[in-house]
Amino acid sequence: METTGLSLIDGAPSAEGTEAFRASDPARGVAVDPEFFTASADEVDRAAKLADEAFRTYGRTTAAERALFLRTLAEEIEMVRPDLMERGPIETGLPAGRIEAETGRTVAQLRLFADLVEEGSWVDARIDHADPSRTPVPKPDVRSMYRPLGPVAIFCASNFPVAFSVAGGDTASALAAGNPVVVVAHHAHPGTAEIVGWAVIRALRACRLPLGTFALLQGRGEDVGVPLVKHPAIRAVGFTGSRGGGLALARVAAGREVPIPVFAEMSSVNPVFVLPDALATRGESIAAGLHASVTLGVGQFCTNPGFVHLPAGAAADAFADRLAALARATTSAPMLTEAIRKNYRAGTQRWDSCATKVTSTDDPDGPGGQGAGVAVFRVRGADLLAGRVPNGEVFGPCTVLVEYDSRDELLALAESWEGQLTATIHGRDDEVAAHADLVQALERCAGRVLFGGFPTGVEVCHAMVHGGPFPSTSDGRSTSVGTRAILRFVRPVCWQNAPTELLPAELQEANPLGIRRLVDGVEIGRTS
Amino acid sequence: METTGLSLIDGAPSAEGTEAFRASDPARGVAVDPEFFTASADEVDRAAKLADEAFRTYGRTTAAERALFLRTLAEEIEMVRPDLMERGPIETGLPAGRIEAETGRTVAQLRLFADLVEEGSWVDARIDHADPSRTPVPKPDVRSMYRPLGPVAIFCASNFPVAFSVAGGDTASALAAGNPVVVVAHHAHPGTAEIVGWAVIRALRACRLPLGTFALLQGRGEDVGVPLVKHPAIRAVGFTGSRGGGLALARVAAGREVPIPVFAEMSSVNPVFVLPDALATRGESIAAGLHASVTLGVGQFCTNPGFVHLPAGAAADAFADRLAALARATTSAPMLTEAIRKNYRAGTQRWDSCATKVTSTDDPDGPGGQGAGVAVFRVRGADLLAGRVPNGEVFGPCTVLVEYDSRDELLALAESWEGQLTATIHGRDDEVAAHADLVQALERCAGRVLFGGFPTGVEVCHAMVHGGPFPSTSDGRSTSVGTRAILRFVRPVCWQNAPTELLPAELQEANPLGIRRLVDGVEIGRTS
Repeated sequence: METTGLSLIDGAPSAEGTEAFRASDPARGVAVDPEFFTASADEVDRAAKLADEAFRTYGRTTAAERALFLRTLAEEIEMVRPDLMERGPIETGLPAGRIEAETGRTVAQLRLFADLVEEGSWVDARIDHADPSRTPVPKPDVRSMYRPLGPVAIFCASNFPVAFSVAGGDTASALAAGNPVVVVAHHAHPGTAEIVGWAVIRALRACRLPLGTFALLQGRGEDVGVPLVKHPAIRAVGFTGSRGGGLALARVAAGREVPIPVFAEMSSVNPVFVLPDALATRGESIAAGLHASVTLGVGQFCTNPGFVHLPAGAAADAFADRLAALARATTSAPMLTEAIRKNYRAGTQRWDSCATKVTSTDDPDGPGGQGAGVAVFRVRGADLLAGRVPNGEVFGPCTVLVEYDSRDELLALAESWEGQLTATIHGRDDEVAAHADLVQALERCAGRVLFGGFPTGVEVCHAMVHGGPFPSTSDGRSTSVGTRAILRFVRPVCWQNAPTELLPAELQEANPLGIRRLVDGVEIGRTS
Repeated sequence: METTGLSLIDGAPSAEGTEAFRASDPARGVAVDPEFFTASADEVDRAAKLADEAFRTYGRTTAAERALFLRTLAEEIEMVRPDLMERGPIETGLPAGRIEAETGRTVAQLRLFADLVEEGSWVDARIDHADPSRTPVPKPDVRSMYRPLGPVAIFCASNFPVAFSVAGGDTASALAAGNPVVVVAHHAHPGTAEIVGWAVIRALRACRLPLGTFALLQGRGEDVGVPLVKHPAIRAVGFTGSRGGGLALARVAAGREVPIPVFAEMSSVNPVFVLPDALATRGESIAAGLHASVTLGVGQFCTNPGFVHLPAGAAADAFADRLAALARATTSAPMLTEAIRKNYRAGTQRWDSCATKVTSTDDPDGPGGQGAGVAVFRVRGADLLAGRVPNGEVFGPCTVLVEYDSRDELLALAESWEGQLTATIHGRDDEVAAHADLVQALERCAGRVLFGGFPTGVEVCHAMVHGGPFPSTSDGRSTSVGTRAILRFVRPVCWQNAPTELLPAELQEANPLGIRRLVDGVEIGRTS
């Protein structure tokens, strides 16, 4: 399929942008056609205003209408899977199989949200009946449920060109809740974005929904995203990217005349804690699992395990050796963008200057242009606790082994981590049970605590929490993966003494949708 | 009961403060004993650190333990009801009956949250079972539920010395969720605060809970509250007060190294819309209801109806006359503080200079010191739309009648309001049904839409929403009244492949608490 290189507004390409840019092929280090055009200020304004107008219709669609739209969108995306598998790898350096998997995840996610809104109970419908005879004042009839916020600005993530981009997680949950979306494409994969953008437009047309419900803006976040976040019609922001980018958007959003919530997923080092017995008895398999997790997608995952705590000693030495051997056997692969590659090099160089290098296959001057190799460092827990070495994220296939000398030091290390998306413990069952204080410390700092395994490969399911205390996200009270994500983009609205015909179906006395509701304080389950 | 005038930290009075102040009696315009002492920087630090330490215990209490504590607290507050009814009116000018009613509301609220946590389903427990045979990768066991955030800073409200103060709404929901609280007393009613503060300490002692779970700090928000909100141990803020105060705290919280959420309930004019037939047939009773709502508590409610839209014409004239007659028959009563009285005067004077005065019984030089009378103004809808008259809140017994000339103007007026706690429609049923566009506009701008009646008198029940888009609150995605308020102070936490004995009871396979859970996408209702 041909891409136009233009922003998509009101269901059509918009040709007001004059500043051109091109995507680059990380594997070859060359710019690729076609030219894309940065959305103009007028285009940003038009997209936001159309979204606001569309909200009046789309925000009042029935659950069944939105479910049909999400399913139609999933089908439309499946139809362009070959196009995505062709264009995606060119723009990202990721293999076609990865793009295929992401596409599968994207459509599964859309269908999961379709199921959720169809089932309907997520709206948290509550009814407290009137009691006109109550004294001293009669009790009113009070009903409430979640309603959409309004147009949401969504930023495509560099590292998930499909699953966290145009029709990715935030878009799925925002649309499911009844919010129009204005998406800012990532400048590294604008063509992939446009392919999905057209799929959204086709789905809107097929479902006869207002075309203002969706727009795709091309250009960089600082040029297009900032004016969009400032636009009065925008009611919330979804972002996945760097700490600097997320904090900048949060500042812009907080500085508006009407501040709006920003859900920015930013940085996380996802600490792993290996207990002594686990290291002694399963060290080799843990090293293999760690290596696979660290190198997955050239380490470009927000859940990449960046620090691994091990008891100091011979077993730790063997672990490091094993990891080094695996690292040396790993083929270098290109990173998503030149900037990411540059930052990775700066990060590993910084570690090089302050820690013991276990191994580094990373060769800045090697073949492959943007290719990055694995880097493993080793540090004493005391140095980390004393702030003598960095504790921030190095985005890429790098991990740091942290040796602890005692149980107290292990706990102190666990307590020292700032907010994380994930924290992982490896231990024999009784060993983990004997470390309840460690588990509790990790529950306080992370959104997800894993017992065994590795944090990459976030399961898309109802119970998943992909979020965590600052700075892993800007607001740890929500998740970007799983059905609970729909709660990001809603607020409760209450009707008092409303005539039944003016109430949403979810709150009508007869419960026509048969959803679970809280009626006079008692939960009444689904009736169909 | 004697008050010490000191902040209460670690279950005891703390005597480090040196700067003294006294409450004043608004009815007599005199300062009253005893002296109170502004908490020192060290006291703020100590209270926050103790709360952080207490969180490790209190944050892991069982639902049954917290329910027992909340019920014990309710009983302790009932025991000091006579003290509150004696001290409250002296510090606030409110009648003893109002303090009694607020006390009843406070204990009912605590018991409602006790019921909620005892029932237990509020935690939104979710379980997705493992599937080890899934390809290409096995599916992990993923479980999640809401967990407390950590220590919460809570500011007492000037206008609710009991129900939105030391053990009021925010404290009840924060404690119910498992968060310690550090409360900043309102400088206008420090004695009332101390009485309730001791009740909290007695309840903690009776339940053998860490005394750091609660602290009460005396002093002004700018002196004590700002350092508290800046303290790294504090994880969230609850505030009810002025727009300036709320925005200042939001700025402080956003500027922290680790930003935290602020739930500030700020300003709302609670627009009322009277449709033609309702005015023609029920004008007199609507005027009587409006008068009662505007003058309740000397107009010092955040849900006070500040603007009332009426169709222009003879019926509006009659309505204004009726309201004026009722206003003239109203006895002036003292406002809570001198500052509030001064702001009220400034607000009515501003209206005096730009609108038609319907009536004003307010006499700045009259007897009663801080007494305030009713002020009613009248303005053309076109003037409001054109920005020729103010549209902000005048805190006190003042309301503005807005005359609209057409249905289009009515809708334009409804669309023009910024975020509100409430919006109210008066109309015959079929008349309201014919104004679906108006209803929809109000649903977009308000947290609660009333059909008939008036917004004051917020029902404490499961379905209530007391919150709304900015600037009525700093974050319209939550409520400060009703059981949904517990969601302010929690975040979802996820356990992956956890041994069952390390899981909270709510997530253990056997469901020992019998709560409603979402298991593999299917809701399983309560089992007991």
